[in-house]
This record gives sequence, C-alpha cells and structure tokens, in this order.
Amino acid sequence: MSETILIVGAGPTGLSAAAGIASVGRKVVLVEKEGVLGGAPILSGYAKLVPSGEWAKDAIGRMVKRVTDNSLVTVHQGTRVAKLDGEFGNFTATLANGQTVSAGAVILGTGFTHFDSINKPEWGFGTYEDVVTTTQVEQMVAAGRIACPSDGRVPERVCILLCVGSRDRQIGREWCSKICCTVSCNLAMEIKELSPKTDVYIYYMDIRTFGLYEDKYYWRSQEEFRIKYVKARIAEVTQGPDKRLLVKGEDTLVKRPIIIPFDLVVHAIGMDPNLDNPGIAKVFGVALEKHGFIDRGEHYTSSFASTRRGIYVGGSALGPEDIDTCVSHGLAMAMRAVGDLSAAAQQAA
Amino acid sequence: MSETILIVGAGPTGLSAAAGIASVGRKVVLVEKEGVLGGAPILSGYAKLVPSGEWAKDAIGRMVKRVTDNSLVTVHQGTRVAKLDGEFGNFTATLANGQTVSAGAVILGTGFTHFDSINKPEWGFGTYEDVVTTTQVEQMVAAGRIACPSDGRVPERVCILLCVGSRDRQIGREWCSKICCTVSCNLAMEIKELSPKTDVYIYYMDIRTFGLYEDKYYWRSQEEFRIKYVKARIAEVTQGPDKRLLVKGEDTLVKRPIIIPFDLVVHAIGMDPNLDNPGIAKVFGVALEKHGFIDRGEHYTSSFASTRRGIYVGGSALGPEDIDTCVSHGLAMAMRAVGDLSAAAQQAA
Repeated sequence: MSETILIVGAGPTGLSAAAGIASVGRKVVLVEKEGVLGGAPILSGYAKLVPSGEWAKDAIGRMVKRVTDNSLVTVHQGTRVAKLDGEFGNFTATLANGQTVSAGAVILGTGFTHFDSINKPEWGFGTYEDVVTTTQVEQMVAAGRIACPSDGRVPERVCILLCVGSRDRQIGREWCSKICCTVSCNLAMEIKELSPKTDVYIYYMDIRTFGLYEDKYYWRSQEEFRIKYVKARIAEVTQGPDKRLLVKGEDTLVKRPIIIPFDLVVHAIGMDPNLDNPGIAKVFGVALEKHGFIDRGEHYTSSFASTRRGIYVGGSALGPEDIDTCVSHGLAMAMRAVGDLSAAAQQAA
Repeated sequence: MSETILIVGAGPTGLSAAAGIASVGRKVVLVEKEGVLGGAPILSGYAKLVPSGEWAKDAIGRMVKRVTDNSLVTVHQGTRVAKLDGEFGNFTATLANGQTVSAGAVILGTGFTHFDSINKPEWGFGTYEDVVTTTQVEQMVAAGRIACPSDGRVPERVCILLCVGSRDRQIGREWCSKICCTVSCNLAMEIKELSPKTDVYIYYMDIRTFGLYEDKYYWRSQEEFRIKYVKARIAEVTQGPDKRLLVKGEDTLVKRPIIIPFDLVVHAIGMDPNLDNPGIAKVFGVALEKHGFIDRGEHYTSSFASTRRGIYVGGSALGPEDIDTCVSHGLAMAMRAVGDLSAAAQQAA
C-alpha cells in the first residue's frame, strides 16, 4: 500500500490539498499540466481576489511557495497523467513524460475552462477590438491602467455584460457561473479606482452577490462608486458611425428597447467544464455529470468522493466555484484522503 | 501539549470536523448546547436537502451515527463551554456542567439562528395563522401533508416570499442569506408533489440559484412543476373578507400594484448570526465581523483561522451557508487543526 497521495492540478484547490496532506507529514505528488503553478488566478493574471482584496499573485503566490518549499511535495509541471492503473491503496499513474507515480489515493483539482466569448458572436467579441472579457480587464487592473485596446484611450463609458456563457440555453450552457456577478461588481469598483471619471454600467438578469458579498460588493459599488445597474436583455453589440460601441437590447424593468453607446464593453465570462474533462474521465475512470463537470459520489459521510473509490474531486472541477470554496474543498479532500488511507492501513495491520 | 481537539457545535460543520479528525486516529471532544445532535437540519425538522435530495433525518442521521459510534469522539450534549483558558496546544475548557476538557485546538461550528419573522410584522407572521415560515413548510413536507394551520385545509394557492430577513436594511440585515432562493425552489416543487393542484408562486427580488442549482431548481421548478415567479416588492400581507390572505405590493417588471389572494403565505426566512455569538466571542476570545458573524483571520494559507491562534471557525458561523459547504468547512478545519498540532508537536520534539 502506498501512503503517497497524487494531486492533479495546482490551482487553489490542489495547492491547498497539497499543503493539508503535507501538514501531517504525508508525501504528495502534484502534477500540473501547465508550466507554472497557481491555476486560473495566475495563468489568467487576476487582479485583486474576492473577497479578501489581496492581489492574486501575492495570495496564490504564498500558496505556491508553501508547497514548493515543502520537501514532502514532489511537483511535476508541464505534464499530465496519461494512464492510471490499480485501485485505492495501490494506484500507479503513468505521466505523459514517461515517469510513474505510486499513490494510495488521487485528488482531482482539475478546475474549469473560461467560457470563450467567441461562442457568443452577436455580443461583438472577436469583431470589435474594444469588446473584451473580465479576464482582460483583470489584467488591465493588475497592470494599473484601463484602456481601450483599439487606440489606448481611457474609456469614458464602460459596461459589463453579465452571464456571457452562463444561463444561456441557446449556446448549451444552462448553469450559472456563480461568482461572475461578484467579480464584476469588484471589477467595476477597481475600474473606478483607476479612472474615477469613467462611468461604469452593469447589465444583468439577476444580481447574485450571495451571502456577505451583498453589501461588500453590490451595495458598496452603487453607493460609494456610483456603478449603475440595469436589468436588461441584451440582443447585440454593434458599432456606431463614431466608432463607439452600441449595446442594443431591452431594459426589462421599464420594458423599453435601449441602444446605449460605450467605449469599452466587457463580457463577464462564465466557467465551463474543463475542456479536458472527457479525457480526465477516461484516464481516471470517473463519471461526468450532465453538463460535463466531474460527478460526485456522495455529499455527507463520504463527501468529495468521485464515482471511483480512492479518487476524490473538488473545487471548480465539480461546477462553477469561488476561490475560497476551492481552498476549503482542497483541505477537505486532503482530510478525506489521509483519513481513508489511515483507516485502510489500520485494517491491513 | 494536548492532541485532543475540541469541537463546539454538532451541526453539519461540527459533525464532519469530528469525523475527519477521528479518521486519523485523533481524539475529539464534541460539545453541543442542545440535547440532540445534528444542528439546524434536525432541530428544525428539514425535509429533503439541497442538492442531494436526501431526507435530512437520513443524511444528517448518518453523520450523527458515524460520530457517536466512534470511540475516539466524546460527546457532551445539553451543555456549553463556559470558559476557555490557555493557548494553542494547551487549552482548558470549562463546561457549564462543571466538567473540564483539555484540548490543543478548538473548532467552532456554532452555526446560525433562523431569522424570526416576527421582526417583519407587516408581512403578517404572528398576526395570521396561515402565514408560516419555510421551516414550518419543511416540517409539513416531512410529515407528508401541506395544510393551512387555521383550519387544516389543503391550500389552493401558496406563495413564498423570498428575502424575509435578508437584503433588508430597514431591519438591519444587509446580507443575502445565500441558500433561501434554492431552498424555496425546492420547497415549491415538494409542495406540488404532495398537492399537484395547488398553485405555487414565488415573489423575488433576484433569483439566486447560483452554480448548478440554476437548472436543477430554477428551471426545473418552472418547466416541470409550473411554479410561477414574480419579481415584486412586497409591502404587506393582510386578510380579505373571505379570510384569505392578501399579498400587496408592486410587480416590479410590469410596474403595477398587485393585490393577490393566497391560502398560505410562506416566509423564506434568512440566516442571522447565531444569537449566542456575543457570548461565544467573549468566551473564546474571537472577533465578530460587522454583521455579527464570527470573523475569519485569513483566506489562503491559514484558512479557517479565527482571529485567535488555535481556534478555527467555519460553516454558517462565518456567514449564511449551504449544508454542502458546511460539510466541506468541517473537514477543512479538521485538516487545519490536525496539521497545525502535528507541526507544533514536531517542533516540540
């Protein structure tokens, strides 16, 4: 029996799982397909995180450092698990680089894929340079300047369109991406901090700043930063004769058609199942749920079980998730895996 | 140094923390102020849980049994921690019943208090017998029959009013209670299952069925169960001459006043900070955040830390939370506490 635990994915979920397992003196092998550790917040260059307000590079950077500094953790980056043999207690993973890893249990922190706005063509992304995504605006905030990509000017008017690739059956995405509303409220305030004269609008179906995000993001953004919220159904984004973007749709509160000019239009992009999930399901022998996220086996006394014994799944691999919850899932899976291996070792002894 | 971990509160959070700690052979002392274990889902008699669909008594019952069957867990119920001395590694808790407990670390899974609808008098609770709370309807569903308390008839028309005690500054509650939308969608479907002829309406500000709850609860309740959703601002609940209840307000989509008759009006009550939190803060020496929930120290590399070293906090003690997340917080805190005590023991050796 192997007491080592294999973790797949080095985002917030996998990093916190690794730290948890190593904290009780157990060995971890962490496999990350990308060449850098940190997952989406690092790869996509997020600015300040919700709800801590810490810069992503600092907060996630600390998580990375804690893991890479720990001699109990072996990191393989830029490679994948190509094959998994064996069973709980005695798995053997073969990596794409040819190395093999023995592990008693496997934790999947394989995350999500950002929605690609090109799949919502009527909203102008890919057609107009000044239609961008929340991820691109995160990068602008991190770089300290909000600018229109077309000519570098500071935008006078910015709008954020919520639910791009979420709650949208026409493009096969019924789910809500959970955190885009709050992230967008936060981003709107960050835009105002960098450019106080810019007017920022948010077009929404429902504002889902759940729990304690409500006053910290939704109310504060309105009251302190004068962000304007418009309940609307957006039909299309086009360009006017003056090259400004035109957002067309219906204001669903006043039931009137609207055509509003903006300098910068931001798509609040949703969270898709990881594009690799079909491959992950095959390699690890786990089931996917109907949308393509990884399925869970149980919720209460065997939580974070996937559909295969000895393989745990958590974080945004299970569905759209915020970073705080990913961190908690990582630690929770660490506890589950260490506990199950301890029980098995005791039974074997 | 004590390796025992003291857990306060035996709801989903505390129960999963206890199971996690015991799974690696460590001792737990679990203190629950009530005479029964299981927390709100058991004390309030919840019906089927979101999102598993399992009956609360079965799902939480399994969690309770796993803990009470474990010889590593000592349970003190019907008592409280009255005093906590010492520091991380060497706490001594004195219980209200006079017993003392030595523990290296403390986990607070002290939960929340349901909003008391009596504090929203204009919506009729306490005045009209047929104005009830979601908790009461959970109990009706668990008992297998939906009925008007006034005369026992099966209601022809039921409405659920969302955000009772949530997102409401007038009564000092700015936060969103996170899970009431989804619970209400679920409850509406359960009402229809028990009484298919009953018409069920949900009055909302924003529908916050975030993540994968969107299609499972919001869309399914509309498409399979014909639940009607009305975006509205409710002013008051009164009684008509025929004794039926009248819900008055404004339909905010069509901008018209509405006065609609119902047989049963359901308050979707929110989650308040635990009423005991001021006392808990004093006994344990931890800070509360501005709304009165227990404050957290950090989010990433020391997650679930309270503001006092060696005391961890999670679940709905931190803010409104769903049961799945409480379970993950419990396990995550277990990992944190066991890991920190392991590190301290190693340093001491």
